[in-house]
Amino acid sequence: MSTSVNTEITAELIAAGKVAHELDREHVFHSWQAQGPFDPMTIIKTEGSWVWDGEGNKLLDLSSQLVNTNIGHQHPKVVAAIQAQAATICTIAPQHVNDARSEAAKLIAELTPGNLNKIFFTNGGADANEHAIRMARVHTGKHKVLAAYRSYHGGTHLAVNVTGDPRRVASDNATDGVVHFFPAYLYRSYFNSTTEAEETQRALRHLEDTIILEGPSSIGALVLESIPGSAGIYVPPTGYMEGVRELTSKYGIILIADEVMAGFGRAGQWFAVNHWNITPDLLTFAKGVNSGYVPLGGVAISEEIFETFLQRPYPGGLTYSGHPLACAAAVATIKAMQEERMVENSARLGAEIIGPALTELKAKHPSVGDVRGTGCFWAVELVTNQETREPMAPYGGSSPAMAAVTGALKKAGMLPFVNFNRIHVVPPLNISDADLRTGLAMLDEALSVADGFVTD
Amino acid sequence: MSTSVNTEITAELIAAGKVAHELDREHVFHSWQAQGPFDPMTIIKTEGSWVWDGEGNKLLDLSSQLVNTNIGHQHPKVVAAIQAQAATICTIAPQHVNDARSEAAKLIAELTPGNLNKIFFTNGGADANEHAIRMARVHTGKHKVLAAYRSYHGGTHLAVNVTGDPRRVASDNATDGVVHFFPAYLYRSYFNSTTEAEETQRALRHLEDTIILEGPSSIGALVLESIPGSAGIYVPPTGYMEGVRELTSKYGIILIADEVMAGFGRAGQWFAVNHWNITPDLLTFAKGVNSGYVPLGGVAISEEIFETFLQRPYPGGLTYSGHPLACAAAVATIKAMQEERMVENSARLGAEIIGPALTELKAKHPSVGDVRGTGCFWAVELVTNQETREPMAPYGGSSPAMAAVTGALKKAGMLPFVNFNRIHVVPPLNISDADLRTGLAMLDEALSVADGFVTD
Repeated sequence: MSTSVNTEITAELIAAGKVAHELDREHVFHSWQAQGPFDPMTIIKTEGSWVWDGEGNKLLDLSSQLVNTNIGHQHPKVVAAIQAQAATICTIAPQHVNDARSEAAKLIAELTPGNLNKIFFTNGGADANEHAIRMARVHTGKHKVLAAYRSYHGGTHLAVNVTGDPRRVASDNATDGVVHFFPAYLYRSYFNSTTEAEETQRALRHLEDTIILEGPSSIGALVLESIPGSAGIYVPPTGYMEGVRELTSKYGIILIADEVMAGFGRAGQWFAVNHWNITPDLLTFAKGVNSGYVPLGGVAISEEIFETFLQRPYPGGLTYSGHPLACAAAVATIKAMQEERMVENSARLGAEIIGPALTELKAKHPSVGDVRGTGCFWAVELVTNQETREPMAPYGGSSPAMAAVTGALKKAGMLPFVNFNRIHVVPPLNISDADLRTGLAMLDEALSVADGFVTD
Repeated sequence: MSTSVNTEITAELIAAGKVAHELDREHVFHSWQAQGPFDPMTIIKTEGSWVWDGEGNKLLDLSSQLVNTNIGHQHPKVVAAIQAQAATICTIAPQHVNDARSEAAKLIAELTPGNLNKIFFTNGGADANEHAIRMARVHTGKHKVLAAYRSYHGGTHLAVNVTGDPRRVASDNATDGVVHFFPAYLYRSYFNSTTEAEETQRALRHLEDTIILEGPSSIGALVLESIPGSAGIYVPPTGYMEGVRELTSKYGIILIADEVMAGFGRAGQWFAVNHWNITPDLLTFAKGVNSGYVPLGGVAISEEIFETFLQRPYPGGLTYSGHPLACAAAVATIKAMQEERMVENSARLGAEIIGPALTELKAKHPSVGDVRGTGCFWAVELVTNQETREPMAPYGGSSPAMAAVTGALKKAGMLPFVNFNRIHVVPPLNISDADLRTGLAMLDEALSVADGFVTD
């Protein structure tokens, strides 16, 4: 069986892309968009760290799409595994045993920290978080959920309402049972901190104050991205996550670590919580688990919470839980990541190439306010003034300056991930050093455009 | 490229199934189950209307898994399409144009009734309903949602809370903004009706009373399965759905038709609403759209609602919206259904084989209280007494009688779909007449066991 096609960029392929674009505008309703003015980019080919647009232009994919293609596009081992699974069993109901599902659960349970040994599979990150919250609520008998501002947990009703970014506000905003707290975020500290130690101490005090004032006896769960992703890749300061683990244990609150974006090597470890050697009670994943080649998400469950559902039915489920095709892709992805040491490579790229390069860019460009990250998970925060830290676009919005920078990145040949006043540097974990350096040079070029918007 | 593997049932395959079963019990957390006593059946092979269990026994799949494999297992055209798509583009972010996504949207828009011309893709039925409700709420500016008792709309927070079956009660039950009304269900009429015409008239009056008393100015949406599925396949009486359409239009309420289970030929029409020539404002789908070969769901959107989001961003989305692999499977499934006239076959099987056979079984077996359905979508309701209509298992539960019947069905060689006091006859739409008759003979056999539990 041939595993992948080396598509040539032909006139026919470009013509087919134009037809696809027309049909898209006639019939496809897109996520998070105003549908009228939206003019989506056509992608006619993908390979490794590269994609080709509708005109056949080759673009370096430093977005990893929505930060999911951790192994890059069209990895031959995973393509072959999907094809082989398709040839045997495409689908089976969740109440049956399937070998791909069993093996994926075993591999994930081996990788997750501590006693997170049971895996509930979902279709993506949003429903993973929804089910994790339900497990915590049923397990504790307590309804309230704490979640951080500047966070993203998914697009369904409960997931978007624990989310702490403007997408929550625009959705059918429900606050019943959800309480938001302020996270540790030193660059724009909500606690007037000036050092990392101060930020950790003050953010933890604020969290404990919130718990006490909301009432520990009413709080079932605290859901938190181990490293917040779309909301800004602000790596928690030293001691913060350990403190969150201590406080949640102290007050009988289930800690749900959302590793949908940060997990599976993105942050230079299999899971971001490994940076602090903590074990949450529930850990949610999606995206990197199989690089999004087939929709898949899930919840890794501690033995204690599992025991709650030994005799009591778990009140939740879905038709495609543990989908064989998705699980076979996860098995192949994890094995390829292990064989090709992609997690180690992610850590190396962050420490040796991205981190040093971004530090240099910050020194060189007055438009760069902050650079931060780990592994292949970095944010560059743009400001109109390094002293005042005035963001180059308002929270929740864009600006002519950011539009110009985004345009410059695309013109330079990059498919970027841009959000508000930030550019995220989130390449595949197996990007070549040369391609990565090419991308960082494109960023350097575009930041000169950003510098033109700096004010005194 | 070989498209499918004709797996032989070998000792090796059976041994691999045993390993998969052990790993499952160690690491897989299953939907809706008490995990302790649960002993799932291993499936080692699937083909057409048949599956093979862990011992290599061949079972007739009259469940279509969770009523999703409308084209049966391992349809070669769809397997080939998945393999071909995997070889080119497995995944792409929702903001881009992809040809598989565009073509799937076009085909679905062509099949859906009226002006439902825009397609928003999700991962399954639950998030399809969640997003449909959000679209209705934003479009109307009204928050409240009406939903029927005896319904199922999915497992995530909002979907399970509009659901009207015991799974809602066991979940973290939230009633804010959700109002349940009583559906038209003649066999156990909530309105003391004795004829279909009476049931239609009374159920519609009850619905209008509910709308008036809750206040039309507060109600954004009414979500209703066109033919309720897991809750009992109770086909609405003549005139009911037309009446629901009229009432929702009259009071400015968005009608969401949930066709996750009833759609894509299951009910002998492409969509069940075609039985009554009505067009809802939003129509949700999943399962049959690609037979669940790759997780996919979606919302078909009317032009009026689409216009609301022309300039205003839609506040919702997901990473895998319009996933290429899932959409390629949908394109191949729809084309195979058209080429092989499966929807027409579904209608014929219902009218010529299943309906007449179930009517005979009802006459023959005192344990059969009611049989009802259309196409390949039928329920057999078991009672301990035909006069009192006492269900053979209580609402939301099972019973020794139903366990015995289920055991008899499996022993006879069937993989059945059983819920409370009902057996659902929901085969693939392309099941052979001979296989279907074999299955109905198995059912006849098992009903003799049920007859043993009938009381005077």
